[in-house]
Amino acid sequence: MKNLILASTSTLHNQEYLEYLLPLLKSHFRDCSNILFIPYARPGGISHEDYTATAQKAFEKAGLKIKGIHEFDSPHEAVKQADGFFTGGGNTFLLVQQLYRHDLLAVLKEAVNHGKPYLGTSAGTNIAGLTMKTTNDMPIVYPPSFNTLGLVPFNINPHYLDPDPKSTHKGETRETRIMEFHRHNTPPVIGLREGSWLEVKGKDIKLKGTLTARIFEADKEPFEVEPETVLNDLN
Amino acid sequence: MKNLILASTSTLHNQEYLEYLLPLLKSHFRDCSNILFIPYARPGGISHEDYTATAQKAFEKAGLKIKGIHEFDSPHEAVKQADGFFTGGGNTFLLVQQLYRHDLLAVLKEAVNHGKPYLGTSAGTNIAGLTMKTTNDMPIVYPPSFNTLGLVPFNINPHYLDPDPKSTHKGETRETRIMEFHRHNTPPVIGLREGSWLEVKGKDIKLKGTLTARIFEADKEPFEVEPETVLNDLN
Repeated sequence: MKNLILASTSTLHNQEYLEYLLPLLKSHFRDCSNILFIPYARPGGISHEDYTATAQKAFEKAGLKIKGIHEFDSPHEAVKQADGFFTGGGNTFLLVQQLYRHDLLAVLKEAVNHGKPYLGTSAGTNIAGLTMKTTNDMPIVYPPSFNTLGLVPFNINPHYLDPDPKSTHKGETRETRIMEFHRHNTPPVIGLREGSWLEVKGKDIKLKGTLTARIFEADKEPFEVEPETVLNDLN
Repeated sequence: MKNLILASTSTLHNQEYLEYLLPLLKSHFRDCSNILFIPYARPGGISHEDYTATAQKAFEKAGLKIKGIHEFDSPHEAVKQADGFFTGGGNTFLLVQQLYRHDLLAVLKEAVNHGKPYLGTSAGTNIAGLTMKTTNDMPIVYPPSFNTLGLVPFNINPHYLDPDPKSTHKGETRETRIMEFHRHNTPPVIGLREGSWLEVKGKDIKLKGTLTARIFEADKEPFEVEPETVLNDLN
């Protein structure tokens, strides 16, 4: 049975890394003695080692051990051997490029589809969608494809931001960007605000946290859904 | 002699489309009777026709006629025949995908390198850089490469935005994104604020407008340059 937590962000304002998610992690990973951290997205360009140390520090607070994928000779084998996964945020282009380089998409997808628990934050949540075409990140490297894990039947936009009515800036709003996405793509997009996450249990996908999420479907007006809404049947 | 205007944005707050650039356009395109508009970036997903009508309306105010590339049977031939170019903003991924689809990069680069005047705004400015890897846009389509025209020997980040010290949002700042770019790429990046443009005349590249620009070089602290600074020798 699929078992995923897909969070918009790792960190809330004035909180420690993963702080708001810690109460969940202990039960999410309760049967896991071998959790694998995927640090490839390297936020701010930090090293795999530093990023893994940050994740380890947070997981320790939940009584959990976690090991970085870069510590293994074969990343492919590391995914096969692990019994749980955490993919951290950072740059989605870099994350996806590295997943393709090490040929990890199929093996990771299979493991998670067979019930190994998965936690994603930000870029790690993005790749659970059908494609990475709704990331907010800068295309600093060229991945061989924008197709990602497809663990949920839609795309996700993490760190979703409402338009600022007072802004004088002419860059596109998030809503405009997703509207442009739907001129060329049909999958629904979930705009997931910071503090929200999706809980995937088997076939059920539920919005969690205290905030509404914004749903974009092709050729429809976007709309808001409340926490606890089941999102299995978006079009 | 190369002759380019590379503007951060088409439109300033409380102004009409291209309004602040109109005084320049008449002289920039003074010898041109056959200006080609490239509307492929389709801002907000609008049609090539609607976008071209918007550009035509603005150019008419400068006494200039302009024709959309989509009106020609052969876009390739249209570029060859034109004596000036305007590439409008919108989505850079879409723009670059279309330029590759119609095999226009080499022919456009050659025309501009041979002195045909070029105007770019936003995405149209982005593609004048070495790659599109410093665009702010959402990757809504997958182009066959991120390499662009290389009309200037660096990358450009249009709509450059300073970090907001009051923000509680955890998405990356523009500066963080460009720092991540420099973990994987060496070319300098010019953060071009809205209202600024680069004037390229032959070998000279000058910052124009009233604002400073932010320069990012790999392994260096970013720094500001004043208007009228010559930017030929960034590292």
